[in-house]
Amino acid sequence: MSANEVGTKLVELCRQGDFRGALEACYAEDIVSVEAQDMSGEGRETRGLDKVREKTARWEATNEVHSCEVGGPYPHDDRFAVTFDLDVTPSAGPMAGNRFRMQEVGVYTVRDGKVAREEFFYSMG
Amino acid sequence: MSANEVGTKLVELCRQGDFRGALEACYAEDIVSVEAQDMSGEGRETRGLDKVREKTARWEATNEVHSCEVGGPYPHDDRFAVTFDLDVTPSAGPMAGNRFRMQEVGVYTVRDGKVAREEFFYSMG
Repeated sequence: MSANEVGTKLVELCRQGDFRGALEACYAEDIVSVEAQDMSGEGRETRGLDKVREKTARWEATNEVHSCEVGGPYPHDDRFAVTFDLDVTPSAGPMAGNRFRMQEVGVYTVRDGKVAREEFFYSMG
Repeated sequence: MSANEVGTKLVELCRQGDFRGALEACYAEDIVSVEAQDMSGEGRETRGLDKVREKTARWEATNEVHSCEVGGPYPHDDRFAVTFDLDVTPSAGPMAGNRFRMQEVGVYTVRDGKVAREEFFYSMG
């Protein structure tokens, strides 16, 4: 699959709120996932599909997502960008109980038909 | 200036429609600007501030911008992302006279307080 085909699949699943399905369908075993900030206290970089699955499960367990608008994919060579507009209430951490909107951009690098790297662009607090 | 400070300035000027001002305020002399597709027939990559000025002037001369919504900046280390939602009518090229909306993402790399590289993510046609 081309980068844009991978992006189309990823966006389709994210629009359904199926973030775990997106991992299983689109991600390489050696995925590297990089946050803009250290949100969890466990570092900004997560390596390997198992660890990214854990990160996703942890995020889902501690955030109630009221809506998530997803834009894209926007391709550029072997990469594509996706925009996220989240309406969310965290149940843990410094923002617990506070409903807020957050926009971010993900930039994904595709290798051999799978997402090998994802980088999230945002600013919090 | 940090990447986020450069991004804040760039977004402020783009929101005013002052794309040339953004070049003068934020761009390095050796800027490299990379399009997702070869829109002009002159290649995807433009090197140097003078050539990027020419590209911008050419684009402004051949596109009527009805509105341009700008989101961001969304920082990540020495880079930041910006989203553009354009409502535009080209006066030249295959789309001449056709008003359309277009979304794209720009990813900017900052070095020594200036934008040293910009990459545009989009898909047309």
